[in-house]
Amino acid sequence: MIESSLKNKIEFILVEPSHPGNVGASARAIKNMGFDKLCLVNPKSFPDNEAFFRAKGASNILDNTKVFKTLDEALKDSTLIFGTSARERSIPWPLRDSDNLTDIILKELGKRNSKISILFGREESGLSNEELQKCNYQIKIPSDDSYSSLNLSHAIQIISYELKILFDSSEHIIKQTDVEASTEKEVDFLIKHIDEVMKQIDFYDKENPKQVHTRIKKLIKKINLDKMELGIARGFLSKIEEMLNKKD
Amino acid sequence: MIESSLKNKIEFILVEPSHPGNVGASARAIKNMGFDKLCLVNPKSFPDNEAFFRAKGASNILDNTKVFKTLDEALKDSTLIFGTSARERSIPWPLRDSDNLTDIILKELGKRNSKISILFGREESGLSNEELQKCNYQIKIPSDDSYSSLNLSHAIQIISYELKILFDSSEHIIKQTDVEASTEKEVDFLIKHIDEVMKQIDFYDKENPKQVHTRIKKLIKKINLDKMELGIARGFLSKIEEMLNKKD
Repeated sequence: MIESSLKNKIEFILVEPSHPGNVGASARAIKNMGFDKLCLVNPKSFPDNEAFFRAKGASNILDNTKVFKTLDEALKDSTLIFGTSARERSIPWPLRDSDNLTDIILKELGKRNSKISILFGREESGLSNEELQKCNYQIKIPSDDSYSSLNLSHAIQIISYELKILFDSSEHIIKQTDVEASTEKEVDFLIKHIDEVMKQIDFYDKENPKQVHTRIKKLIKKINLDKMELGIARGFLSKIEEMLNKKD
Repeated sequence: MIESSLKNKIEFILVEPSHPGNVGASARAIKNMGFDKLCLVNPKSFPDNEAFFRAKGASNILDNTKVFKTLDEALKDSTLIFGTSARERSIPWPLRDSDNLTDIILKELGKRNSKISILFGREESGLSNEELQKCNYQIKIPSDDSYSSLNLSHAIQIISYELKILFDSSEHIIKQTDVEASTEKEVDFLIKHIDEVMKQIDFYDKENPKQVHTRIKKLIKKINLDKMELGIARGFLSKIEEMLNKKD
């Protein structure tokens, strides 16, 4: 078995769940696969008796479930973020069919302070575009084209099941390194920094400034810089600013 | 995509489910993965509004759900039977890790009249020993040792998810053959026939006749004879009986 400290690096985040029963069933689902971190963003009702009833023997998960008002607060310390989505552009989840995704997760687990967050959207409408943009990767559970919307706790069951199988088969593969991961908050500061510099040098297309901004944001999320790389990028931007200010 | 006629060969059977909500969630779970055959044995309450509420867009599955009083009736035409169980002796389900199990399923799908039934037990107590003995194979969903009992509809979600992935990746592999599968009922007749002959030739250990009978039953289930092989075995037994009767 993999050390439980590594399983602690995985966190399941439900964004605005409406049904307390789904929250309880999700707690049971992750405990069945050996995980224990559940997190809620602005739930309709929590704590709630229905959640504890559906959790059965997993009430300890609910006792330790953190509740946040906003997604940003929930993601503050996250270093790698997946968002589940039914969109076709997303990466199919089956980890065993995706060496790339597997490598990304195993590499991240090896970083000192890593924390992998997996986002699940609302029962009726999923995650918003803005929420998906906060993710490093969008993932999609394979399902029938004509009826693809899974029950929330069932989606969590499949994702945690795949992760358990990955963990069980990779116990000797994960190399603990000294690399420190950058957190969601730090990445956001970098994106803001880039944005400021872009504005100063009049880089944005005046007609459509948002399009370039969105692309850059996506790119930065995708390359998943570690703390040192991010520091270099920030230093580079500061230096540019310094030079620009000197000119004024 | 695989032809839907092959997906029709898979049937999910819930044995004595207590909670109508689980039946509804199970209907949704299999429809999400492109399957449509759900079967109930002696359910506590069906049809039931709660089942239809939880099924969401999968109410057509419930409309076509067959209900049987006994498991034997439900299995009458089945040609390959899996029983889900949390026992350690069972075969772990992840199909992609088990070439053997994959081969068995693909081979069975190729037979003309094949019908693969997957049994799920009661919410509280699972399948009985007697019910598991009716299965060709016992399968186990990997789960955490300290908390292994999955919610019923979640177990169905994982099994149907694995089957979908198998179907999607095997569309060109399944060879339709002329081999005719033997049904559960025919296999039961064979086992009874063996039993009769065993008694006639005083084969059973008088102290413990049930032990040998159980082993033979298990063996016959495991080798999964096709119709022609089964016919040869029955003919062989009949010939023995004929010779024995001549002697009297």
